[in-house]
Amino acid sequence: MLDYQAPLRDMQFVLEELAGLERIGELPGCEDASPDLVSAVLEEAGKFAAGVLAPLNPVGDRQGCRLEDGQVVTPEGWQAAYDQFCEAGWIGLSLPPEHGGQGLPKLVSTPVWEMWFASNMAFAMLPQLNVGQTEALMIAASETQKATWLAKIVSGEWAATMNLTEPQAGSDLAATRMRAEPEGDGAYRLFGQKIFISYGEHELTPNIVHLVLARLPDALPGVKGLSLFLVPKYLLDEHGEPGERNDIRCIAIEHKMGIHGSPTCTLSYGDDGGALGYLVGEPHQGLATMFVMMNEARFNVGIQGVALGERAYQAALAYARERVQGRDIVTGEVGLPILAHPDVKRMLVSMRARLMAMRGLLYTAAGWFDLARHHPDAEVADKHRRYVDLLMPVAKGWCTEVGNDLCDEAIQVFGGMGFVEETGVAQLFRDARVITIYEGTTGIQANDLLGRKILREDTATLRELINDFRETATQLDGHERLGDLAEALHDQANLLDETSDWLLARKANTAELYAGAVPLLHLLGIACGAWQMARLALAAEARYEKGEGDAEYLQGLIELSRFYMATQAPQAHAHGKTLRQAGAVLSRFPAAAL
Amino acid sequence: MLDYQAPLRDMQFVLEELAGLERIGELPGCEDASPDLVSAVLEEAGKFAAGVLAPLNPVGDRQGCRLEDGQVVTPEGWQAAYDQFCEAGWIGLSLPPEHGGQGLPKLVSTPVWEMWFASNMAFAMLPQLNVGQTEALMIAASETQKATWLAKIVSGEWAATMNLTEPQAGSDLAATRMRAEPEGDGAYRLFGQKIFISYGEHELTPNIVHLVLARLPDALPGVKGLSLFLVPKYLLDEHGEPGERNDIRCIAIEHKMGIHGSPTCTLSYGDDGGALGYLVGEPHQGLATMFVMMNEARFNVGIQGVALGERAYQAALAYARERVQGRDIVTGEVGLPILAHPDVKRMLVSMRARLMAMRGLLYTAAGWFDLARHHPDAEVADKHRRYVDLLMPVAKGWCTEVGNDLCDEAIQVFGGMGFVEETGVAQLFRDARVITIYEGTTGIQANDLLGRKILREDTATLRELINDFRETATQLDGHERLGDLAEALHDQANLLDETSDWLLARKANTAELYAGAVPLLHLLGIACGAWQMARLALAAEARYEKGEGDAEYLQGLIELSRFYMATQAPQAHAHGKTLRQAGAVLSRFPAAAL
Repeated sequence: MLDYQAPLRDMQFVLEELAGLERIGELPGCEDASPDLVSAVLEEAGKFAAGVLAPLNPVGDRQGCRLEDGQVVTPEGWQAAYDQFCEAGWIGLSLPPEHGGQGLPKLVSTPVWEMWFASNMAFAMLPQLNVGQTEALMIAASETQKATWLAKIVSGEWAATMNLTEPQAGSDLAATRMRAEPEGDGAYRLFGQKIFISYGEHELTPNIVHLVLARLPDALPGVKGLSLFLVPKYLLDEHGEPGERNDIRCIAIEHKMGIHGSPTCTLSYGDDGGALGYLVGEPHQGLATMFVMMNEARFNVGIQGVALGERAYQAALAYARERVQGRDIVTGEVGLPILAHPDVKRMLVSMRARLMAMRGLLYTAAGWFDLARHHPDAEVADKHRRYVDLLMPVAKGWCTEVGNDLCDEAIQVFGGMGFVEETGVAQLFRDARVITIYEGTTGIQANDLLGRKILREDTATLRELINDFRETATQLDGHERLGDLAEALHDQANLLDETSDWLLARKANTAELYAGAVPLLHLLGIACGAWQMARLALAAEARYEKGEGDAEYLQGLIELSRFYMATQAPQAHAHGKTLRQAGAVLSRFPAAAL
Repeated sequence: MLDYQAPLRDMQFVLEELAGLERIGELPGCEDASPDLVSAVLEEAGKFAAGVLAPLNPVGDRQGCRLEDGQVVTPEGWQAAYDQFCEAGWIGLSLPPEHGGQGLPKLVSTPVWEMWFASNMAFAMLPQLNVGQTEALMIAASETQKATWLAKIVSGEWAATMNLTEPQAGSDLAATRMRAEPEGDGAYRLFGQKIFISYGEHELTPNIVHLVLARLPDALPGVKGLSLFLVPKYLLDEHGEPGERNDIRCIAIEHKMGIHGSPTCTLSYGDDGGALGYLVGEPHQGLATMFVMMNEARFNVGIQGVALGERAYQAALAYARERVQGRDIVTGEVGLPILAHPDVKRMLVSMRARLMAMRGLLYTAAGWFDLARHHPDAEVADKHRRYVDLLMPVAKGWCTEVGNDLCDEAIQVFGGMGFVEETGVAQLFRDARVITIYEGTTGIQANDLLGRKILREDTATLRELINDFRETATQLDGHERLGDLAEALHDQANLLDETSDWLLARKANTAELYAGAVPLLHLLGIACGAWQMARLALAAEARYEKGEGDAEYLQGLIELSRFYMATQAPQAHAHGKTLRQAGAVLSRFPAAAL
């Protein structure tokens, strides 16, 4: 079994030095996030992740879930862990205090969610749904709805789901068919089938609150005809407690390659007269609200990338330090652990470099969320809202792709033992494979990035971001020991600038541009990583000069930054070339010749 | 379930135009390989692969193998398929006629093995062992041994295995402990444990012939003390038939992520007095002979890369043509299959481009094997032997890495359905994960390429190969329609030349160089692919001008070549930069900072 220890030192470093924890803690409404409290939260979460969730992870994988007479049976230990999780108040960590949450900034909950996903992703998918649903209801639900549902969702007493996908409507929500018929009193009857619903049914909580996209009778076709409904598994009685069973059935669960502990359900609504649901927000405006939940989920899936990558890295590092094999390529010495082989060391350093780059991007973005929400200066808030919007598809798309690469690389470090299930890295690899798919594939993220984010505003926010890269690079210019990093970061900024120019110049060639959307997403992800790694080196150097902290650790961060530039930055150029060269070939390629 | 159709048109094209089938068929001893016969063989093999092996593939995955009272039970249908496979004589296709084979060139058996691996890799691993073992015994066994064993191995009446790995001796065979004690009469008693033995035990054949590395009492430590033994599961009686059971036990089989149909056994030798074995070749010279079998296996694992990639591609293409989702990004039209989305098309064209590049390299290399073995001019034979030696680690290492990428990409095309086991692409992805590991990891291949192949001869053969690249590029220079490909190939040749210079200049910096071995392997793989894709375009253009064949198909090949250059060639540059930049950082990186 794989151990997991939350990487507290790395997390704290990124929180403090890259994501601006101090600044966030000074925002109105975020004052509770003092350094001491944050340390205590991270430490507690680390204990829970390592002690409770991590040991359950292989159990969930082996046992999986079963559907028995319409009931979903989750793996042994799930119930006790969930109860403990709720009791400790983990769900409400960054949720509104008025509904029972602790109201801490998103910056604080982000590393905590990294721990949950790293220790047991299949489990953590359940409470994560409560967070996303709360965010959505906070924006669109009526005050009565909030009063009725939110406290139970924030505490985790009731579970939550999001219902989007149907057999003919996967990435394409315009094809949604689920229909809702008015019943009077703001109630509706829902009819139809939803698939791929994570934790769509289980017995872990006395109720489950489904948020469901459906069409009203007068709906327009397409996504402008989608309304959002809250549909509980059990209707509430006069005391607000779960009473009569609603007309929803779990008719199948998927047999998946990974995340076996998380039941993926097919839900049938309205086989017996219609499932009773309540409209959330305005009619036909459902997609925008669902996107609040979806965006929350997307960001969290990005965190899953770094989380699974970290767990895989810890496993690979432990194995590489312990497994003795071969002789030193220089000295011929035998009896050395495989970490002594240059290629194995390369894999591990490369994993750690990308982990820090992802963490830098994700935590910094979490800080932007908080700035957007809490900063008193509207202009500052707006700038960070735009940054979040621009980079959300990168945080999701790039971090999940890299997370998969890291799990793959961990297996390679293990060699044959990695292909054997007992060692546990195979599970990480299998689990990880879903994260570039769910909540929107990498292709969907890339199209969103290119079309809705970059082209729609003619690269404006992207140029602002590039200027921020340059500002960091300028701080490094002529630096006695870090000058090489300045060069590398200027190079990435220039590459992004040229790429932006090229995109604008080709704006009319839609098919050609979109053929390069995924390479563009990779390019921007790598460049953002380069920016964060340059900032990491600057911060490490500053601490080193002040004599603060472990010198070897700080030197390691600086060399990690160099290694990232040496290995990842050239990939950004390759993606840039692919973007510029491949679209034209592709758009004329005869599909019949495939 | 996934269909599989052998890609006969592509295979024939590569055989004829890139691998020089005609030239090979003119070699002494290869005259049987007439175009008509080769076509007939490929067609028959295609039927067997599609009709018999492919439908069994998911059965093997679901049922797996079981160990019951020391007996290994293989999946339902394995026995019948194996009997049919042997009866049709497929094992002996390119094995020596004097032992019952058909003596066809390796060039002919290569696409046939591609079909076996594509349709059912877990199954095909079994007969593949017979081929490798035959090659090894032909080189090192005594005439008596050949007469006793080879006919049954070539026919498949008896199965074969290769026994290298021990718990402490994985990539590091120097650590082998299995010992052999002389018994007189050329017989030995073997004691010890071997792990990760594919098809180490089963009931599909009345006997199993193990080739085992072990140490004689007077052996030196390290790899120079390894001798090779033939150890049958059943000792032969006076009629040469399987008689008394030998002292070998299967004590465990692995629980693996993939290739469930192939039992991976732990074999215990000599628990009851010693397993009787026979020395093959000279004492202490076992590794060289085992490497004959190993090299055969390595090449075949390279073929597994293209094979699994092809099957994944076929599945993804079929799905992309059938699944309707979303609207056309240019016209807004709905009801289109997802292949109409630029990013999905990009994935499929990219898969097909890399498939053709791999096929070009592997089939061409198979032709080199035949030239090395049969060409009457010793200089020509030697040149091709050197080419094979140089590129064997690339054929294995690069094609398996790319094969994994293709299986990964196929899942991405399927989206959520790819993560669900029923669609079958998940199995390909899981199965493929072993191919970059077994028969030597990518890191081991890369070290072999850098050290034993490139540096040991100061880049001599590599420079010859680069000249061949330039010759092809020169044929394209100034070509009216293909001039852009000339430029791309010259660029790859220059990159390789510069890389070779750099390697020679840094020859003393061992640790730094080896840190870049895997990037170097990728670079050379991509460049070899570029060479083959340029040749492919030239050949397609020539046929097109002569009005031979389907114009759309030929145009497709030319555009495929362009797409490869546009997307893969930049990756070669990125790997080159990583090679030159990362080693220095890595060699000073403090391992304690990991």
